[in-house]
Amino acid sequence: MNKNGYNLALCGYGAIGKGVVKIVNSLPSSLNIKMTKVLDKEEKREELGELFVPSYLDITLDPTIDVVFEAMGGDAFAYICIKSALENGKSVITSNKETVSKHLDEYLSLAKQNNCYFLFEASVGGGIPLIYTLLEICDYDHINRIQGILNGTTNYILTRVIYDHLSFEDALKEAQKKGYAEANPDADINGADLARKGAILASLAFNKIIDVNEVKTYGLQYLNQKVIDEIQKMNKVLKYVVDAKRVGEDISLSIMPTLINEEHAFESIKYETNGVVLSCEFNDDVVLIGKGAGQLPTASSMIQDLFRVIKGNGEIERKNVSKATLLPPPENNYLVLDKNGDVFIKYLNSFELNDYPFIARII
Amino acid sequence: MNKNGYNLALCGYGAIGKGVVKIVNSLPSSLNIKMTKVLDKEEKREELGELFVPSYLDITLDPTIDVVFEAMGGDAFAYICIKSALENGKSVITSNKETVSKHLDEYLSLAKQNNCYFLFEASVGGGIPLIYTLLEICDYDHINRIQGILNGTTNYILTRVIYDHLSFEDALKEAQKKGYAEANPDADINGADLARKGAILASLAFNKIIDVNEVKTYGLQYLNQKVIDEIQKMNKVLKYVVDAKRVGEDISLSIMPTLINEEHAFESIKYETNGVVLSCEFNDDVVLIGKGAGQLPTASSMIQDLFRVIKGNGEIERKNVSKATLLPPPENNYLVLDKNGDVFIKYLNSFELNDYPFIARII
Repeated sequence: MNKNGYNLALCGYGAIGKGVVKIVNSLPSSLNIKMTKVLDKEEKREELGELFVPSYLDITLDPTIDVVFEAMGGDAFAYICIKSALENGKSVITSNKETVSKHLDEYLSLAKQNNCYFLFEASVGGGIPLIYTLLEICDYDHINRIQGILNGTTNYILTRVIYDHLSFEDALKEAQKKGYAEANPDADINGADLARKGAILASLAFNKIIDVNEVKTYGLQYLNQKVIDEIQKMNKVLKYVVDAKRVGEDISLSIMPTLINEEHAFESIKYETNGVVLSCEFNDDVVLIGKGAGQLPTASSMIQDLFRVIKGNGEIERKNVSKATLLPPPENNYLVLDKNGDVFIKYLNSFELNDYPFIARII
Repeated sequence: MNKNGYNLALCGYGAIGKGVVKIVNSLPSSLNIKMTKVLDKEEKREELGELFVPSYLDITLDPTIDVVFEAMGGDAFAYICIKSALENGKSVITSNKETVSKHLDEYLSLAKQNNCYFLFEASVGGGIPLIYTLLEICDYDHINRIQGILNGTTNYILTRVIYDHLSFEDALKEAQKKGYAEANPDADINGADLARKGAILASLAFNKIIDVNEVKTYGLQYLNQKVIDEIQKMNKVLKYVVDAKRVGEDISLSIMPTLINEEHAFESIKYETNGVVLSCEFNDDVVLIGKGAGQLPTASSMIQDLFRVIKGNGEIERKNVSKATLLPPPENNYLVLDKNGDVFIKYLNSFELNDYPFIARII
């Protein structure tokens, strides 16, 4: 602890923001860490009482504030708030994968210029201590591949569909009811959410700049009962997998439904749980599993970042980064749903992958 | 990096020590990190050439050396070397669970007094980033329970016995041939190795001083084919498990053969792989899996510690620690082998556990 207490502010008083406040309030009072301002919409004024502020400038221009938590989601407004906070020398801790995947290097260099930190442990894998572990391994080892189940919504749905024989529609409704899936689950189901997480992990692990729009993404939108029946006949399990691999100087990065055997490390990662395998040169496979979402696990990761700020070890150095060339998935056997509604297994090369409404890699 | 390069020394040029040298030699030369002295027995003089030194004092009294790696194992001589290094202000990085479990708090306070670090990531769980993750979680969360498969030798043997139907003796011989088990595997099979690891983890997670000799340890020595046949009939899987739990102000800590269902998180942790579940208040369950032993995974963890020294974030603070009262395992159903060689399931209370040559908790 290099100073005598910390004043915190929070942008976004939703589920995760409330979790942050809860954990901050549970910290020993001897640490003298206080949440002093919370930004949200006018309708939260009463609930927040004295903490409420109506403008982000009330936070980013306040010289008494040391650290800003951003838990609003989305990019446009979050970008303005984060940039303003960093420019004013306040460390920023965010759970927002969208804005991190788009502006990672800009945020990191702003933090460096202004002697503060930009930290985003909670943006990928919720409560799993993933980002920092990955960065620590990169100090001395080479990560050659990252494979992850990193979307709790779709993993919940696929678990219910494959193991518990629910229909996709019923499983989605249930996930929404339980708060795992949003009212509009498109970004989960079409892979946009996973593309952001994959871009963040791959850019850190491989020291590259990755354009999230270039990530090859194959969705679950057209997964139907006929495909599910076929998967069950094959005695395989369907997972929605981020796969990022070093291929010489380039990177193969894809978001793809994947059929695994029951002995695969991913088989035991069910429901809303997330997991990731980091395959390293020296360290072999390191597997990290935990709650990929949820109020307290996600807020926990943000508080873990707070302690990195306090201990002065939040710096993330990026040296000699270059723009990545993203390769499509390699030729392989795929389970395919074609435009006529037929389901079959076919050996496809990279150029044929987009010819089908639904494909799943078979491993 | 707070200085212009680091001079390292190593005590013990066995498999792990050689791994440390290999990874150090692979680091970018711009970091200016050099292995300058290696202590081992006279017969290694030729192999080590200029690096060889015959006495630990050549290392601990050398003002040019910043960091000492200890990879000898055992306690008596390791204690002398580690103490001398810390007293001379050199940070120490060890993989030696025996000496850590016996002298943890003495080492940590010596390091504090002498403005250096004592780090031991590699002492539990080999290449799994376990110690640091656990300490980071403790900054803000409460770990309520730790369950772990943390002995690669016995996990390898039990996997071969239960899944592949080898006899215990054949599996042990195979483990020795593959280098997982030592010529004298007693400490693995009677639980002494796991008791050390359990004591280290529990003392950190629960902020207690634990006497390793008080850890309740139930061994595999009397596991026989009749027991194995019974386990297979039950459709259960046998794992050798460290289980440490907060019970009010006390700790329940045991090393015990444990029968799990095939859906348990531990089911997929096979052969020499290790894994641990940290059950937290806010963060739910965090599961970490990786290589529990082996040259490069273990050496990797030691190099990870080196980077903590370099970045200045190696301090492990212990405040208000008190001696733990260790409770025996609670009453439960156990699979029991009695003195007549009969195998059966029995509900036992804590006092009856020692009446049987072999017991396995059923969960």
